[in-house]
Amino acid sequence: MKKKYLLAPGPTPVPEHVALEMAYPMVHHRTPQFSQIFAEAAEGAKYVFETQQDVLLLASTGTGGMEGCVTNLFSPGDKLLVINGGKFGERWGKIGQAYGMNVVWHNVEWGKAADPQEVKKILDGDKDIRGVLVQASETSTTAAHPIKELSELTRGREDVLLIVDGITGVGVFPLPMDEWGIDAMVTGSQKALALPPGLALVALSGKAWRAADKSKCPRFYFDFKKERKNLADKTSAYTPAVSLVIGLRAVLKDIKAEGLANVHKRHNRLARATRAAGKALGLKSIAPDAPADSATGLFVPEGIDGGKLVKFIRDDLGVTLAGGQDHWKGKIVRIAHLGYFDTFDIVIAISALEMALKKFGHKVELGKGVSAAQEILMEAY
Amino acid sequence: MKKKYLLAPGPTPVPEHVALEMAYPMVHHRTPQFSQIFAEAAEGAKYVFETQQDVLLLASTGTGGMEGCVTNLFSPGDKLLVINGGKFGERWGKIGQAYGMNVVWHNVEWGKAADPQEVKKILDGDKDIRGVLVQASETSTTAAHPIKELSELTRGREDVLLIVDGITGVGVFPLPMDEWGIDAMVTGSQKALALPPGLALVALSGKAWRAADKSKCPRFYFDFKKERKNLADKTSAYTPAVSLVIGLRAVLKDIKAEGLANVHKRHNRLARATRAAGKALGLKSIAPDAPADSATGLFVPEGIDGGKLVKFIRDDLGVTLAGGQDHWKGKIVRIAHLGYFDTFDIVIAISALEMALKKFGHKVELGKGVSAAQEILMEAY
Repeated sequence: MKKKYLLAPGPTPVPEHVALEMAYPMVHHRTPQFSQIFAEAAEGAKYVFETQQDVLLLASTGTGGMEGCVTNLFSPGDKLLVINGGKFGERWGKIGQAYGMNVVWHNVEWGKAADPQEVKKILDGDKDIRGVLVQASETSTTAAHPIKELSELTRGREDVLLIVDGITGVGVFPLPMDEWGIDAMVTGSQKALALPPGLALVALSGKAWRAADKSKCPRFYFDFKKERKNLADKTSAYTPAVSLVIGLRAVLKDIKAEGLANVHKRHNRLARATRAAGKALGLKSIAPDAPADSATGLFVPEGIDGGKLVKFIRDDLGVTLAGGQDHWKGKIVRIAHLGYFDTFDIVIAISALEMALKKFGHKVELGKGVSAAQEILMEAY
Repeated sequence: MKKKYLLAPGPTPVPEHVALEMAYPMVHHRTPQFSQIFAEAAEGAKYVFETQQDVLLLASTGTGGMEGCVTNLFSPGDKLLVINGGKFGERWGKIGQAYGMNVVWHNVEWGKAADPQEVKKILDGDKDIRGVLVQASETSTTAAHPIKELSELTRGREDVLLIVDGITGVGVFPLPMDEWGIDAMVTGSQKALALPPGLALVALSGKAWRAADKSKCPRFYFDFKKERKNLADKTSAYTPAVSLVIGLRAVLKDIKAEGLANVHKRHNRLARATRAAGKALGLKSIAPDAPADSATGLFVPEGIDGGKLVKFIRDDLGVTLAGGQDHWKGKIVRIAHLGYFDTFDIVIAISALEMALKKFGHKVELGKGVSAAQEILMEAY
């Protein structure tokens, strides 16, 4: 009966009724019954993307959707500006390079956000750049890049696309795709959409669809034009991830019922509460200037092995948080807010962190972080 | 309370206990807990592939695994011999062409199997051919290609790979990968493995892994060498399809408990029973010479619209069978045997077919097909 609590930034917990709905008997994918589910799920996804454009549902995780953005919108040799402020920024560049693009790396210190002025300078100085590839929320550093400001740089230019990895952004905080003029946005099922991993969602602007007509990359499984054509017939080019599409339709109903603005507000409240708790505990934020509402990252105190701390919290306390990658390995802890999370998930996470820090010999006043969080969590009641 | 029965050749029904196991609370994919599940699932898959090689688990449907075989094992310009005897044979060629391969089409009449002697002639006459791409079971025509005989043509040649789409073959009938020397074999979760779609499984021979070292195709999401490296660490390069991997481990336990040879025998018994029923009803087989045990295809009687027949069986009787594609659209009906199917599923399918034929004005003696099937179904008891 050892109880477990999942608070890592993806996969996130699946609402119980959604998990059960996905366990319903299998449906054949080429039937009117499933076509309706598929069409409703794709239509419902527009609400979360804040777009009138089609949202494609791909049977892959988010990385597949990212690859599709590169291979459907650009051609080998194209110059791409990659905002590289963490593991996922790096992934954009690696995908571009894998497909023969000319990647211009714009390295941003981990935990910082890209500076739109610097990006503007680069774009103004190099008219060959065809795309700006960026994360709405760089999950590895919990920093949010300024998508609205970046979109102002690309919106008026037919020859530069803004490609946004919204995997831990879409459904977490405002990213109104059409209003801002984002050209491609990707998310995955296992984040704010609170489903198991295995479904990527992608939407393109009109400008991006025009670029897709000119792209010369080889592709087959991730073929956006083919998927759009099939979506018009309420189906997908290849077998869809049936159970996840059923789950998507269910979870989108919940999101619509809560209201997207309220979902965003909830994530923001959980994030602010966690940040306040970190501050009360004297733990430095890993992204102090531009924290995303998807997850909060905190440095563990000097002298404490963050890897061991996260392991203790997981294996002994039963609470799964995330640690750090690369040069932040063993140095940080990350607490998720995105998806099926509410007030007491944050109480659990902070309380577990306090107890673990005490166990590891750090001087900590139990409850100090929790009470700081509670002050903010109460706003909703 | 209208009851539904799914008897199409994929997605196939998911065993109830497996569906529930997949509905268990989400597990984080970078934890020892999930690593063990992942490793057990990948290890268990070797039993069904009859291989000692690694089985890669990819978060995509089978087509993604097929694409990966082409992009990881060949290079643009390579000459590939594609056995094209149906929709899925055609897909091999389209993938090859999408990645700049020189595709040599070996067209086989729908419903027929490839003739190994003809393939031998082509291979002997063209030493530039680097791969033979074929279906173990061509789902669109229910014909089985002679994989054993084809493997005898490629086994001794380091420079020719035999690439088998085993999507409706693996776990259905014998395809001992190592023994026969199959170089790459793919399957998907939603067929004999009785899971929802969204997971592709791929295994490569030593010869294929050596070819992978030389391949020059662009790729990122489907990168077999990267996946193999990660599998050695009990993980995957990108987020795995967690719930499907959990389901895979569960269903592989069931398959092992039944015994692979018994699973094959069960499929064969269901297939022979269905064929006998078709014969008793005077319906011509669509693949009379080389019927696969994955599904049985029958021509509907002249003058009956097969599309309307399949629709009536589905919407009125609640039984989902499959119809035909392309020039067989409206002309055939396909009944599945692969996966979580047993005796009375076949009784249901045949009985529904009989009732529908009668309803559509065809002269049919009710129960004649069922009794012919029963004679064979009884073998197991």
